Amino acid sequence: MNTSQYIIGIDLGGTNLKISAYTFSQFHKLYERRIATRPKKGWEYVMNQIHTAILELYTVLPKQNAVCIGVGIPGLLDIETGVSIFSSKFPKWENMPVARWLSEKTGLPVYIDNDVRVNLYGEWLCGAGKHKKNIVLLTLGTGIGAGIVIDGHVLYGATASAGEIGHMNMFRPGRPCRCGSDGCLGRYVSASGILDTIKEKIAAGNSTIMSEWVNGNPDKITAKMISNAYDLGDQMAIDTMNETGVILGYGLVNVINLFNPEILIIGGGMSAAGERLLQPARKIVAEHALRLSREHCTIVTAQLGDSAGMLGAALYARQRFENGTRF
Amino acid sequence: MNTSQYIIGIDLGGTNLKISAYTFSQFHKLYERRIATRPKKGWEYVMNQIHTAILELYTVLPKQNAVCIGVGIPGLLDIETGVSIFSSKFPKWENMPVARWLSEKTGLPVYIDNDVRVNLYGEWLCGAGKHKKNIVLLTLGTGIGAGIVIDGHVLYGATASAGEIGHMNMFRPGRPCRCGSDGCLGRYVSASGILDTIKEKIAAGNSTIMSEWVNGNPDKITAKMISNAYDLGDQMAIDTMNETGVILGYGLVNVINLFNPEILIIGGGMSAAGERLLQPARKIVAEHALRLSREHCTIVTAQLGDSAGMLGAALYARQRFENGTRF
Repeated sequence: MNTSQYIIGIDLGGTNLKISAYTFSQFHKLYERRIATRPKKGWEYVMNQIHTAILELYTVLPKQNAVCIGVGIPGLLDIETGVSIFSSKFPKWENMPVARWLSEKTGLPVYIDNDVRVNLYGEWLCGAGKHKKNIVLLTLGTGIGAGIVIDGHVLYGATASAGEIGHMNMFRPGRPCRCGSDGCLGRYVSASGILDTIKEKIAAGNSTIMSEWVNGNPDKITAKMISNAYDLGDQMAIDTMNETGVILGYGLVNVINLFNPEILIIGGGMSAAGERLLQPARKIVAEHALRLSREHCTIVTAQLGDSAGMLGAALYARQRFENGTRF
Repeated sequence: MNTSQYIIGIDLGGTNLKISAYTFSQFHKLYERRIATRPKKGWEYVMNQIHTAILELYTVLPKQNAVCIGVGIPGLLDIETGVSIFSSKFPKWENMPVARWLSEKTGLPVYIDNDVRVNLYGEWLCGAGKHKKNIVLLTLGTGIGAGIVIDGHVLYGATASAGEIGHMNMFRPGRPCRCGSDGCLGRYVSASGILDTIKEKIAAGNSTIMSEWVNGNPDKITAKMISNAYDLGDQMAIDTMNETGVILGYGLVNVINLFNPEILIIGGGMSAAGERLLQPARKIVAEHALRLSREHCTIVTAQLGDSAGMLGAALYARQRFENGTRF
């Protein structure tokens, strides 16, 4: 390998497409950009956005030094054939040959994996999970995702769907979920879940400083506002954060008892709530998880922020390029 | 290997100790016995029972043809050092060097693993899970245990405690559990759990044919009687089996969503209830588990009965003896 060779890591999100380049051996970051994905414009538009982003990268780094491309994609994939089977974030996107399309355009080997799993690879190999063999990464965003390493092996499962923690049943019956069930963890502990809780409280006639901030339109409240209101001592924000943290805590109890991780990493946009959310969760874990398992498990927030996906996609691409196998 | 060489597989239970011998290469069963364990008599008594069972075996099979010994033990173990750390079934049994003790007595290599995991090895390699790579074995006995294989790897986790499905939180608050939490799955779906449900119903003044069978002493009702009463159309037995099956179903929903197994094997004494229990559980799974995951998962009862542990212990011993590593 020539020392100036690099790998391209792409994190394809429902809102933004993030692209970075890293040196092949040391993983120094050489380049980073983000552009809008606009998934409603369809498959070809999104794929052309990816290709455009790569051509832009080539204006800065020599094309001939690019070795391979890793792409993290939401939803269900066939990582062997490089096909994106289905994603709720990309409407009408079914059985799309992402890897082949991109490989034909660029002449490079292209490897795809699930967006949460590429986040996991970033945090596992270069972030909060470094040198660990038993890791659960929970991404709390619009919904909940999880990437899991046990005994040094990444869990995929029969249909590569292992780790669907967001659909753990927490209430019977509970809030309906688009998965067809109800009472799913992700309907309470996620940006959309916590906002639903706030809206329910407002609809029940409770008052909050946040109503002033949005001129009485609860649909304009954001997860960030709840943290701000919490810091100002707003009772509804404090109650909501506590209640959500308790539900998260019971979810973590199950995760700890079932997977026995040594580290539980909380990432995703909603992890910005930090200890406001994690403190009540930690209390439930201390009271309800199995003693041995909880005493050997640390709960931390993610270290790499929203760079984890790009970095992880590149690390994954190198792994497959060099070894022919996934982690 | 000489064709008459054999492996000894031992399943050490809280009530019985089961011992078998299998041919080294083909795993034909050459011998089987069971004797009472009597754990209350202490560590030395139990270990001497194991040694006595082996000496008895030597009266039938030539001692010099024995290659190695595998032992399945309940509770927490260090499988590398062969130490039984703790088991609720063996009071005052802490940090006991089972493998070393037995190896010194017999002159053979001895390998230990958890009792549920050796059951898994039996069902995985020779029973209902043959040729599968993604398996969850649930043992429904006095409590619930689980042994899990994902992507062909057996899950151990940070403290070898992965798969504690019996302590999945199902109700908040719920029945107290000796783990320190409450509402755990095993407090409802297990021999002791279902009997508690029956006793609650009797205490609430409901009638059942089982009360006649035990002369009005509910403590004498057994799990087997509930199946018998169910078959006779006893309403309390039918209701209890349905309610327990529904809770089991929600537990299986979480197991399917989190582990994504291709086969879910229900074993342990309580699996004798069969479809009486599994039918309501299957209905919940069909309604609440993620579609893709549930469509790729078959739910079956175990094939090897209570031989799975001995066979699995022997298979495990051969694996470690030949390859130096666990599955």
